[in-house]
Amino acid sequence: MIVVMNKKSGEKEIADIVKRIEAAGLQAHLSEGVERTVIGVVGVSPMFQDLRESLALMPGVEEVVRIGKPYKLSSREFQPEDTVIKIGNVSIGGNEVVVMAGPCAVETEDQAISTARAVKAAGASVLRGGAFKPSTSPYSFRGLGEEGLKILASAKEETGLPLVTEVLTPADVQLVVQYADILQVGARNMQNFILLDEVGKTQKPVLLKRGMSATLEEWLLAVEYVLSEGNRQVILCERGIRTFETYTRNTLDISAIPSIQKLSHLPIIADPSHGTGRRELVAPLALAAVAAGANGLLIEVHPTPDTALKDGAQSLDFEQFERLMAQLAPVAASVGRRVAGKGG
Amino acid sequence: MIVVMNKKSGEKEIADIVKRIEAAGLQAHLSEGVERTVIGVVGVSPMFQDLRESLALMPGVEEVVRIGKPYKLSSREFQPEDTVIKIGNVSIGGNEVVVMAGPCAVETEDQAISTARAVKAAGASVLRGGAFKPSTSPYSFRGLGEEGLKILASAKEETGLPLVTEVLTPADVQLVVQYADILQVGARNMQNFILLDEVGKTQKPVLLKRGMSATLEEWLLAVEYVLSEGNRQVILCERGIRTFETYTRNTLDISAIPSIQKLSHLPIIADPSHGTGRRELVAPLALAAVAAGANGLLIEVHPTPDTALKDGAQSLDFEQFERLMAQLAPVAASVGRRVAGKGG
Amino acid sequence: MIVVMNKKSGEKEIADIVKRIEAAGLQAHLSEGVERTVIGVVGVSPMFQDLRESLALMPGVEEVVRIGKPYKLSSREFQPEDTVIKIGNVSIGGNEVVVMAGPCAVETEDQAISTARAVKAAGASVLRGGAFKPSTSPYSFRGLGEEGLKILASAKEETGLPLVTEVLTPADVQLVVQYADILQVGARNMQNFILLDEVGKTQKPVLLKRGMSATLEEWLLAVEYVLSEGNRQVILCERGIRTFETYTRNTLDISAIPSIQKLSHLPIIADPSHGTGRRELVAPLALAAVAAGANGLLIEVHPTPDTALKDGAQSLDFEQFERLMAQLAPVAASVGRRVAGKGG
Amino acid sequence: MIVVMNKKSGEKEIADIVKRIEAAGLQAHLSEGVERTVIGVVGVSPMFQDLRESLALMPGVEEVVRIGKPYKLSSREFQPEDTVIKIGNVSIGGNEVVVMAGPCAVETEDQAISTARAVKAAGASVLRGGAFKPSTSPYSFRGLGEEGLKILASAKEETGLPLVTEVLTPADVQLVVQYADILQVGARNMQNFILLDEVGKTQKPVLLKRGMSATLEEWLLAVEYVLSEGNRQVILCERGIRTFETYTRNTLDISAIPSIQKLSHLPIIADPSHGTGRRELVAPLALAAVAAGANGLLIEVHPTPDTALKDGAQSLDFEQFERLMAQLAPVAASVGRRVAGKGG
Repeated sequence: MIVVMNKKSGEKEIADIVKRIEAAGLQAHLSEGVERTVIGVVGVSPMFQDLRESLALMPGVEEVVRIGKPYKLSSREFQPEDTVIKIGNVSIGGNEVVVMAGPCAVETEDQAISTARAVKAAGASVLRGGAFKPSTSPYSFRGLGEEGLKILASAKEETGLPLVTEVLTPADVQLVVQYADILQVGARNMQNFILLDEVGKTQKPVLLKRGMSATLEEWLLAVEYVLSEGNRQVILCERGIRTFETYTRNTLDISAIPSIQKLSHLPIIADPSHGTGRRELVAPLALAAVAAGANGLLIEVHPTPDTALKDGAQSLDFEQFERLMAQLAPVAASVGRRVAGKGG
Repeated sequence: MIVVMNKKSGEKEIADIVKRIEAAGLQAHLSEGVERTVIGVVGVSPMFQDLRESLALMPGVEEVVRIGKPYKLSSREFQPEDTVIKIGNVSIGGNEVVVMAGPCAVETEDQAISTARAVKAAGASVLRGGAFKPSTSPYSFRGLGEEGLKILASAKEETGLPLVTEVLTPADVQLVVQYADILQVGARNMQNFILLDEVGKTQKPVLLKRGMSATLEEWLLAVEYVLSEGNRQVILCERGIRTFETYTRNTLDISAIPSIQKLSHLPIIADPSHGTGRRELVAPLALAAVAAGANGLLIEVHPTPDTALKDGAQSLDFEQFERLMAQLAPVAASVGRRVAGKGG
Repeated sequence: MIVVMNKKSGEKEIADIVKRIEAAGLQAHLSEGVERTVIGVVGVSPMFQDLRESLALMPGVEEVVRIGKPYKLSSREFQPEDTVIKIGNVSIGGNEVVVMAGPCAVETEDQAISTARAVKAAGASVLRGGAFKPSTSPYSFRGLGEEGLKILASAKEETGLPLVTEVLTPADVQLVVQYADILQVGARNMQNFILLDEVGKTQKPVLLKRGMSATLEEWLLAVEYVLSEGNRQVILCERGIRTFETYTRNTLDISAIPSIQKLSHLPIIADPSHGTGRRELVAPLALAAVAAGANGLLIEVHPTPDTALKDGAQSLDFEQFERLMAQLAPVAASVGRRVAGKGG
Repeated sequence: MIVVMNKKSGEKEIADIVKRIEAAGLQAHLSEGVERTVIGVVGVSPMFQDLRESLALMPGVEEVVRIGKPYKLSSREFQPEDTVIKIGNVSIGGNEVVVMAGPCAVETEDQAISTARAVKAAGASVLRGGAFKPSTSPYSFRGLGEEGLKILASAKEETGLPLVTEVLTPADVQLVVQYADILQVGARNMQNFILLDEVGKTQKPVLLKRGMSATLEEWLLAVEYVLSEGNRQVILCERGIRTFETYTRNTLDISAIPSIQKLSHLPIIADPSHGTGRRELVAPLALAAVAAGANGLLIEVHPTPDTALKDGAQSLDFEQFERLMAQLAPVAASVGRRVAGKGG
């Protein structure tokens, strides 16, 4: 942190700043320039952010500049090499593009199993499906709960695909852990810090979606909650941010993919289903995400999207999904990747 | 809901739409115009939103238009007269402007009690203070927990002010209910639906902050979670939305105040401390909120903001708060209101 | 500007930075800390912004921090005392709240003159009205052009009110200058730099609206175009920014009012008509703006808003405007201001 | 347009609506449902948008719903087949991916010609370069003006590449037309309607960038200005929108590419240089845009980006551009496209 004094600031003001810094258990390092004095702050404090904001308001201060990044364990500086997460035969974060597909919400055993079979046949290597669903309205479908988890377990057994499913609240973590291979934390819960603590205490990989209005930095700080509890297996998932544009449900921020890969060693995948909210945009955005370097995709597939209980408008049917998988292989190859689970 | 067919759509497409509507247990009502056919959808279904999105993607459909509002119990249509919530001697939602003030986070008994006394003396009628704090970084201060609640209980006993304090997670609701007069649900938890369910099951008034990127409609749907559990005492709190502007921490949406009052019968207050993130903007925005019709204010006050563990940059000191209260009275009077607890 | 090197940067990288800074005609000032080296950049260069971005990408650089503000003539530092702009008997930027009112677009002489009379009677002190109208669609009404200016001239003569009217393009500046007392530059033209140059060359006060997605800094830089051409009379006008919320047409950023007053010496007014796009929100937001310290208001008034050719939905009729003016006086008084032109 | 009455509306209110519609020269078409009356509005009026807003505020109205799209000539409905624009040997809008590359701003003849040669050698088929530059600050470089155009003419002659260059203001259109093969209208001028009128009167193809906060609909309405003047050759260019995220300069909205291709018959290209503002993100986003179906790319290239007068931070050097072109070919092939000008 660097405190930049304004041109008119005097000795008294500088002394007050130094006193305030030292009161926080840190050291002040003065550098007097021609035009103004600059004060470096050295040391570590848990209240850094708040100290920074306070200093910014003290008399004589022009600006306070943070140096370095507030997240640590998730940063490239902390770990230069990529984290690769293994789930059964699948590796996320390496050279493969991992496709996770399935219904938004589990409705019936038939729906879940037929979808699991279809996505496996088309080349998906992880099954997605929701038993606990966040819903904007209390009057909408909120998922089958534990019954849904049991259905997903059958679908998993039937196909051998590992399962990613959402956990909504801390009290459910122990239950969901028994069924899931990857615990999903949704966009609305990205800053549900108690939930992050809880999934951080498990040994399961966590798929953490970006919050609707979260900056990359806030997202990596949310990741930090999980990592600092001891769970180092986090997969980030870009799912669209909220902007002024209403034609798409969200704006899928493709630039977040290479940005996160620069800032962090953790894998990042994209969810073009929620990211666009429109079925016809899922395939082009899936291809774009892979071309930009995504480590995987999360895709909603439903036997009959028109009658889906949830998010039918953004779900692909089996044929559309198969077609997408066929298009995906050459795009992955064109950027030196391969789609996991396909062929050999 | 109205389904508008495009000009080229034919009988087959119209028949498919009608079939789909009836399959959802609803009735279709055709109106054939000169240029195009319009289909009204009559009836009630929990999956309305998803049906709407599905219909929009069916062949021959130009647009699907939702009629009416998706929230019910919170709407003015459901209840034309204002809801007034009584907490001890204080009434929120009537003619008085209720000021809730206190520290962002409880740090020590001294800090809490001295602040409580100061805000009471200056005319606040509710004490605010956080024991459980959401924090963007896991390395920042997260509050004193139950110890903080006990300190707040002393401050409340000392001053007689009722207490509003945040509950972060469903498992803490039973604990916080024992101390709080109003349960605060923060912006990051506005769509923590399980938490909304839980506070909805209590008999305590709930102060529900607007999510950082929540539309008015999403906010009222979150309110609906609480109301539909049987708790009809919800106070909305505008606390700033996220926009592209970075000079202020958030953009306090003053227009949300009269808008919510038009759409809903529930009281709405404003939080200019979080809404601006800058101490020098708190007073002008507080006055603006009251001039626009706010039923109250939530203000952060700290004995020595420069050394606060949390949000010092947006906290007022005692003198600044006293000055704000002095300015508030004539502004409230100028719009036909009075500040609660002041004078007789 | 301060260049912060990362912890691993070596002598070679530091030397390259210094060379780059000196190549731009500036001086580098090294300060070697315990953990890292910090390089101050001293001097002035027109390409500062681009140099900053370039330095940020050079090897070994952690961050480049801008010191100070990029705008000058408009800043409080440059001129501590408020600029007060006089137009006839009206002073903008002093203790009075100046209300500018009139139709969005001039339609007929009757409409313009009757509105001018009505707003004058209710206490407005400047007449607004558009002859050249920006319109999102080429198929909508684009204004009467010079004929509209002539009608406005009659309305001005009739009432004695000075006139503010929009100029859309550089080629029209000389024409509009003959009719207007204040030249309005609209939100869509805030970064029409050639137009800013042109109005900067005139001696007329300029009312510069904030662009729909302009930061405060970008806005003040746009002001700087006008000031640096020699015209020091600029009035800023907050008219709502674009956010994700769609209930209101824009989100009126009330916090911009005290923020601009802190950063700049120029007057700032608010336009709650465009800022909300909804007639019933105009009055509460107008009161809020004045309570927050606005130097004036820009309000759309129409004899029969329901049949207005443009922006009827956000226009007040005569009676509504009169009621607003009556509410305004006590609010202005409550913050130590008075409405210009009212009473004595 | 459909006017939906609320449940409590009576005959008087319905009659008023009908009268208002007829007063605007349109016909009202009543449909009385079980719960409420719906009124269809038939006919064409230039003031449709304003009528819609007015009706929405009339007593008894629940909602007014626009049917169909406000833009016409640019819509897929108006012209189902893709528009292909030919400039010399280059076709934009067909099966080829057209890469337009060159410096942000022309600085010297050497810089322009060496860059033109380098981008041609690497496979670009159009030269880009700015002589008139919009600049946020009046103190920054604003381009060489006509001298810059002359330099670009030499670079064009030298390489045979057609030229795209920006025109900033209506008065310059006749000048720029003499040098440019494609007239660029920048993001800040997307709603400079007078400029759109002017370029619409020329016979040159127009490259129209999306405004920083423009919706797809507003963008297509801006296109409509050009088309309705008789110039049917418009290329849209997605260049990033403004969001809350600050890590990237803008958020490149990749979903706009397939969306525009669905809504319109016109070609769309992407500008990942402005779209990201960060050199290291240009290549991944360029690949993403092509994978999503972009008809071309606009890329900033500079011999020595670190010393560029403008936008060096987002410019590629010759080697980086060559590498990008090498990566581009297989990605284009993977989605059934080829890069224009490469090979045969």
